[in-house]
Amino acid sequence: MEVSMHALSAEVFVNALGNLSWILEKAAGNAAQRKIDPAVLLGARLAPDMLPLTRQVQIACDLAKNSVARLAASEPPRFEDTETSIEQLRARIARTIDFLKSVPPGALEGSDTRDIRVPAGERTLEFKGLDFLQRWAIPNVFFHFTTAYDILRHNGVDLGKRDFLNAGREL
Amino acid sequence: MEVSMHALSAEVFVNALGNLSWILEKAAGNAAQRKIDPAVLLGARLAPDMLPLTRQVQIACDLAKNSVARLAASEPPRFEDTETSIEQLRARIARTIDFLKSVPPGALEGSDTRDIRVPAGERTLEFKGLDFLQRWAIPNVFFHFTTAYDILRHNGVDLGKRDFLNAGREL
Repeated sequence: MEVSMHALSAEVFVNALGNLSWILEKAAGNAAQRKIDPAVLLGARLAPDMLPLTRQVQIACDLAKNSVARLAASEPPRFEDTETSIEQLRARIARTIDFLKSVPPGALEGSDTRDIRVPAGERTLEFKGLDFLQRWAIPNVFFHFTTAYDILRHNGVDLGKRDFLNAGREL
Repeated sequence: MEVSMHALSAEVFVNALGNLSWILEKAAGNAAQRKIDPAVLLGARLAPDMLPLTRQVQIACDLAKNSVARLAASEPPRFEDTETSIEQLRARIARTIDFLKSVPPGALEGSDTRDIRVPAGERTLEFKGLDFLQRWAIPNVFFHFTTAYDILRHNGVDLGKRDFLNAGREL
């Protein structure tokens, strides 16, 4: 028993979302440089039945904030899905990070054994907190973050692992 | 102080790698059904300067096993990068899972404050164990796992979030 649920949820997601915001900033610069309408990138998908970049970013934010709120047994802020620009998506990420940072570590104390319920269509998924973090929250947030990165790379934006891991800085 | 470093590293990676293996099994079936040489999928990339599927799987395995070994201050098994089939990649995943399961939880006790060094080209990255898990190991493993999934989806393999999160089973 060594680390807190907070460290492996809120802190991990704050870091990931900061990198996602950085990646979008680079994408905006790249689009300007290549004279590409940013809306083309925001609507890009890796497959016709996968979600476009805008939705990947929105969902990454929602999974991060809703998962931490569930672990804290609190109500997360709700965001409308109205973003139509990279700047607006980065603002949503910033609001999400603000929320994550506002959750005191103590609010997640004991959350590893808390009962977590996740509405999923007509079903309700049930987890214990630790299992929820291991098998739902972490994989899900990184799924959408990575897919956003992959969409941009597929569309020729010059990104590398350093951008994904550490906002372009040396680790 | 609630959960173990083991639960958020070895256990998370065992679950993720099990799902990666399942995804590859579905890809093999899909290739057979569509009469596509599996080697086409194994060599597929999302961008010319991104790594192909085979490398994504190999690296996901290596990051999982090397990260947990570093946290346990032990020597991980070394695997040659010789796989040329989906079956061989799934065997590598199975060996990686076996290794992860062989690491006793107690070996990671106190690893949150352990000094971790990661060779990176000419540099050596230095972390404390918790920071290493938060900012390196977890993001990195999920980066390669998700990118493998994204490559397959981009190439028309019929996968969904349920495959990614829970090997096709109901959560």
